[in-house]
Amino acid sequence: MGSLHWKTSITRVEPNKILVRGYPIEELMGDITFSEAVYLLLMGELPDKNKAKLIDAMLVSSIDHGATPPSVLAAITIASAGAPLNASVAGGMLAISRWHGGAIEECMKILLRIDGDAAQEGVSYDEVAERLVKNYRDKKMKISGYGHRFHTDDPRSRRLFDLAKQLGIAGKFVNIAEALKGAIAVVLGKELPINVDGAIATMLCELGFPPELANSFFMMARLPGIVAHVYEEQTRFEPMRKIHPTDHDYNGPDERHLKQ
Amino acid sequence: MGSLHWKTSITRVEPNKILVRGYPIEELMGDITFSEAVYLLLMGELPDKNKAKLIDAMLVSSIDHGATPPSVLAAITIASAGAPLNASVAGGMLAISRWHGGAIEECMKILLRIDGDAAQEGVSYDEVAERLVKNYRDKKMKISGYGHRFHTDDPRSRRLFDLAKQLGIAGKFVNIAEALKGAIAVVLGKELPINVDGAIATMLCELGFPPELANSFFMMARLPGIVAHVYEEQTRFEPMRKIHPTDHDYNGPDERHLKQ
Amino acid sequence: MGSLHWKTSITRVEPNKILVRGYPIEELMGDITFSEAVYLLLMGELPDKNKAKLIDAMLVSSIDHGATPPSVLAAITIASAGAPLNASVAGGMLAISRWHGGAIEECMKILLRIDGDAAQEGVSYDEVAERLVKNYRDKKMKISGYGHRFHTDDPRSRRLFDLAKQLGIAGKFVNIAEALKGAIAVVLGKELPINVDGAIATMLCELGFPPELANSFFMMARLPGIVAHVYEEQTRFEPMRKIHPTDHDYNGPDERHLKQ
Amino acid sequence: MGSLHWKTSITRVEPNKILVRGYPIEELMGDITFSEAVYLLLMGELPDKNKAKLIDAMLVSSIDHGATPPSVLAAITIASAGAPLNASVAGGMLAISRWHGGAIEECMKILLRIDGDAAQEGVSYDEVAERLVKNYRDKKMKISGYGHRFHTDDPRSRRLFDLAKQLGIAGKFVNIAEALKGAIAVVLGKELPINVDGAIATMLCELGFPPELANSFFMMARLPGIVAHVYEEQTRFEPMRKIHPTDHDYNGPDERHLKQ
Repeated sequence: MGSLHWKTSITRVEPNKILVRGYPIEELMGDITFSEAVYLLLMGELPDKNKAKLIDAMLVSSIDHGATPPSVLAAITIASAGAPLNASVAGGMLAISRWHGGAIEECMKILLRIDGDAAQEGVSYDEVAERLVKNYRDKKMKISGYGHRFHTDDPRSRRLFDLAKQLGIAGKFVNIAEALKGAIAVVLGKELPINVDGAIATMLCELGFPPELANSFFMMARLPGIVAHVYEEQTRFEPMRKIHPTDHDYNGPDERHLKQ
Repeated sequence: MGSLHWKTSITRVEPNKILVRGYPIEELMGDITFSEAVYLLLMGELPDKNKAKLIDAMLVSSIDHGATPPSVLAAITIASAGAPLNASVAGGMLAISRWHGGAIEECMKILLRIDGDAAQEGVSYDEVAERLVKNYRDKKMKISGYGHRFHTDDPRSRRLFDLAKQLGIAGKFVNIAEALKGAIAVVLGKELPINVDGAIATMLCELGFPPELANSFFMMARLPGIVAHVYEEQTRFEPMRKIHPTDHDYNGPDERHLKQ
Repeated sequence: MGSLHWKTSITRVEPNKILVRGYPIEELMGDITFSEAVYLLLMGELPDKNKAKLIDAMLVSSIDHGATPPSVLAAITIASAGAPLNASVAGGMLAISRWHGGAIEECMKILLRIDGDAAQEGVSYDEVAERLVKNYRDKKMKISGYGHRFHTDDPRSRRLFDLAKQLGIAGKFVNIAEALKGAIAVVLGKELPINVDGAIATMLCELGFPPELANSFFMMARLPGIVAHVYEEQTRFEPMRKIHPTDHDYNGPDERHLKQ
Repeated sequence: MGSLHWKTSITRVEPNKILVRGYPIEELMGDITFSEAVYLLLMGELPDKNKAKLIDAMLVSSIDHGATPPSVLAAITIASAGAPLNASVAGGMLAISRWHGGAIEECMKILLRIDGDAAQEGVSYDEVAERLVKNYRDKKMKISGYGHRFHTDDPRSRRLFDLAKQLGIAGKFVNIAEALKGAIAVVLGKELPINVDGAIATMLCELGFPPELANSFFMMARLPGIVAHVYEEQTRFEPMRKIHPTDHDYNGPDERHLKQ
């Protein structure tokens, strides 16, 4: 052991043996889903089946949102210049930043603060939420996780809240998110829906994730979407084309539904 | 529609409506796993339950391999300089390249070529495989997907082949991979095990993935591992520490097993 | 010295002493230009004053080309999502790839091959060049460094060739580049101008750079341009704007000229 | 002009015409150095010859610092996995972050604040600097730009200050930097030398650069160094080697000096 010796608590690797957070990897393979393995890796323990189902739903909710987000536009612009897939994807990751995906972390911090302040002061979530919204209004700051420039009633948010209730995971953070929605209506005089960032933030709080990992959740979810767009760019378009950020539409399969 | 108008076939986005490959996203949420959604996004159709199980096992197999791979070392070196999570992860992605993860694509191309040549010439996989191994030997080239500098009997490979058989997915590419293993033993006079890259390559061939997406499969699988190491770096270590690439060991949970 | 001990021949760092390729850095500072230091670092020796002047001209020639190249579009797309300057610039670097900047390396390889074949076979550059152009034509391949979709008479190419002649650096590679231009006219029946990539490739060959460093030359030259565009994005535009790849024009200073 | 029309003030590109901040690029080529072009691009005007000389000295001062900085370690780790040059360099850029290069921006902000406070309150730099150092001490914060874990008397800092005086550029920010050094000695009771980050910060303030561009200055300066290390990695070492962060030494040219 030299002077630079260090320790890691994630995975133990020995010849013919790989233990992820203590579990032999070949036992996990075939027995748990990738989403369960993600939770194990990031949180250190396996989730129960209901949590696993919610994590799957959250990851699925953000897997793609078409070609307009900056992560996709950056990735396909890089791909169009002839870069390999991994470099294109890395460029997409770099765009998952403050204004694109970053609202999840911001919203988590707001929800956690309302929880903390309410507990410390012994007052209701409504009271703390109203104070916070007034404070944001006075500083002309937006409350992350509420309102959407495109979807007025985001099907992903609704579905996540419904699932959380069905799965018995909806707890105090769902209440806090709703208190905050109410406070916005009272203080700002308008109904702002909880958007998908706000819904994921609420769920990550319920699951006990630290806000510092919020961005990684979005990165993991969106990576397959970025890959699909880069692969489409590489296989369908000429190199160096001029990529219009909005003047495109969809020509994939027609609307269809899961078989019951 | 302007002169730069273009079309994408992945996801249709309209106000309050998001269709991924035709499916309303809120129907997918709660009903399919993230792995099934990955397959849908990349391949255009939902996998059956057995394929979904194999994809989960493949993604789990590569979710982490400790702190020594260059993707992790690059990512934590960047994190240690104070970069945010997404930039650190992007740096890790850039290292998933020819010598790190790239063997999957190389191996897929070899397996597909053996399949194609055998079909075209009407000869056995063994014959084509022996010819190919001789050719590689003469050019002093390594056959990707066979042999491992660390694991002589990789538990992940064995498990993937077993699962493919149990799930009824093992088909001609499993035979080709075994023919190639045999040819290596005959021509090179040594037993080289199929490593995890080779096993994943075999499975991706069975599932019909194009080799150009092989690298993305590894990126999706390893992303949570890179995130976990970056988060550990950020929360456990001083900035700018000197990161030794091998002089580290594991101090996480002891070996443990899934409850039956 | 441990088993991982290794050696580097670039810069020697000791307390209060930094020797770049052997020279104390404080002696270089104030005495040589950055371009001379670039040459020293990459080639191991200081250039003479004429070479230094040509390198400056080459770096200046590629410092910016407006907002349309994919490196700039990728960088400002990432910046627009809220990423810091260095991540935006890194995204731009990722787009300096096969179809964007990559022509310099390709063209260098062609010029070096013509030189090598002519020497080995004892025939003229014209003869080898014509054979090569026919070969490319038959394979429907483009010859990198010739023709431009936008500039029919690129002022940068002309200036670089003029400077190389004035500075006494124009040598066999200028002749080869001209032989190749002639061969294209003869074989393809059209006049294709040497574009700026071809001109830089010719100069890098004259200066003895290996083609593997061609891309780095373009990266070093273009980095300030990418920085300027990212900074403009950050200071002039709203986050998350939709960035049109061509529908923009210039509103900076009017045309002006250096004082004589 | 569509609804996404936008304007850029950096470079005007028309067929056969490229105007950088108004100047025809072919006029700049051969007439100004790359460093002058960098200043023109970032600041909008050409520097006078003395400023140009100082910028060259600053860029040269940071062109390389051996193999230990995280930007180099990240870049060569990525290169070692088989990534192309530009991806390796992009990984290096990602490490030029808060703790590596970031001190320049921090130090500029401190110097600008001392200047602003002294002017507003009509008090001496010494007084404001002492108050600031006490404030940092009470908050247990380090003052960026002072002290170095390796160089106790950094030859680069000394040289930059000497040059600034010789070139007539040393002005109020040199005085502020010295006042701050004095205040550190008085308040903290120890002599901390101005390190190279602090020296560059002082010079960038004298030149009127905004602190938000400080990081770009370091990126431009260090890029050739990163390229040189990546190229050394690619040409001298086996892929996938384990890269020790400190157990390496120098085997390049012996110490030598510029000819007088």
